[in-house]
Amino acid sequence: MLAKVSKNRLKYLAGLKLKKHRSEEGVFVVEGEKLVAEALNQQAVEVISVIGLEGWWIENRLKYKGLDSNFELVGEADLRRISSFAEPNQVLAICRQPDWALDETILAQDVSLYLDDITDPGNAGTILRIADWFGIRHVFVSPGSVEVFNPKVVQASMGAIFRVRVLAWDFGAFREKFPQVAVVTSELKGENIFKVHLPKGLLLVIGNESKGISAAILDSDSLRVSIPSAPGGGAESLNAAVAAGIICACIRNN
Amino acid sequence: MLAKVSKNRLKYLAGLKLKKHRSEEGVFVVEGEKLVAEALNQQAVEVISVIGLEGWWIENRLKYKGLDSNFELVGEADLRRISSFAEPNQVLAICRQPDWALDETILAQDVSLYLDDITDPGNAGTILRIADWFGIRHVFVSPGSVEVFNPKVVQASMGAIFRVRVLAWDFGAFREKFPQVAVVTSELKGENIFKVHLPKGLLLVIGNESKGISAAILDSDSLRVSIPSAPGGGAESLNAAVAAGIICACIRNN
Repeated sequence: MLAKVSKNRLKYLAGLKLKKHRSEEGVFVVEGEKLVAEALNQQAVEVISVIGLEGWWIENRLKYKGLDSNFELVGEADLRRISSFAEPNQVLAICRQPDWALDETILAQDVSLYLDDITDPGNAGTILRIADWFGIRHVFVSPGSVEVFNPKVVQASMGAIFRVRVLAWDFGAFREKFPQVAVVTSELKGENIFKVHLPKGLLLVIGNESKGISAAILDSDSLRVSIPSAPGGGAESLNAAVAAGIICACIRNN
Repeated sequence: MLAKVSKNRLKYLAGLKLKKHRSEEGVFVVEGEKLVAEALNQQAVEVISVIGLEGWWIENRLKYKGLDSNFELVGEADLRRISSFAEPNQVLAICRQPDWALDETILAQDVSLYLDDITDPGNAGTILRIADWFGIRHVFVSPGSVEVFNPKVVQASMGAIFRVRVLAWDFGAFREKFPQVAVVTSELKGENIFKVHLPKGLLLVIGNESKGISAAILDSDSLRVSIPSAPGGGAESLNAAVAAGIICACIRNN
């Protein structure tokens, strides 16, 4: 029988619900059976500890190599205390925040994304999932965007957080370092994304949910594209993640 | 000076946070300055009452005709009690749930959507917003889907709830009544949505977030389409609203 975790340890684990503590410790939390299984099966991100209910342990203890040495048993009330969700699952994992390297060859030849102050964690996670689906390797994140290790971002990414290289970069610094990468922005008067021809190496900017793309980026030299709305359409705009999905789909299928 | 609302009235208004009460009263709640302005400016849905802070009232009282007769003044604490959101805005409006009619001519000639047990309110609202953007007039909703008058759906729809005809229909009943409308489902092995030719009158089914499209619909005679993923992509699927957005964009631009 495994020993239950100590009060101090519980306090530490519950503290990881805060960005401050996650950053200090350089870790993030993955919740739920599906994502924890993915964390244990993938190679790119280190799993430091798995915390779960006895039922999960009995069912999964032989499935993963070395799980014996980093599993911590908790009861339902304690799991609820550690979890960031109203309805915690049976298990969660503490993972090391990956320190992704930038691949300049891919950057020069392929699509990358830039999250320009995306503040909704669901949108940020959904955009990582889109990048993962379309094989986009780099997602750059502005300083004003939501923390990508926020539990809601991790959840909405559906495992993309283990695969897509997420890099914190200020736009100005990026532009200065990589002037050869074309910047693509979307706006109402841009060229129809279904017809435009874009260069191979490009950075697609996804603007803030209410303010859109920041003036500094729009003022820089960018290629402007648009998703045509129907003549009878009434919406002012599309959700940021939906727009990102449509533009990525078009780029990949042009 | 306007009189503040009574305790009983406050209790009634706070009760509208529950689906049960919204259904019984046949109303829904629209929150925030932007959406309330839209509610007051549009014609399709009746605004029964506007409830707001004094600051909002002073700034907006002359902007809207007849607002005098249906404005109710509340303080911040009361607005917080009525609001479904952690951070209520300055104002909200109680609107009559529209009883949309189905237009068979449009149905036969254009794209309609079917939400097959979409349970996430953010997804449902985002899909209504997509329909609105692409001028899609009808969105049918399965009995197992989230209530479309849920405040989070209304919020995510960004006003589409005032324009798109939302109709509760069981799939079987729809199929029986409109056998001439082609049913389109998306799945991994379907035809590439960027290349397929689809009939004009079609019903695009958006499946449940975790279970996908229900067996009864897949077993029926449907045209299967897919959004190609990149060879290097790792994600198992796309978010339901993102997939809906990509397919609608392709249908409108083919």
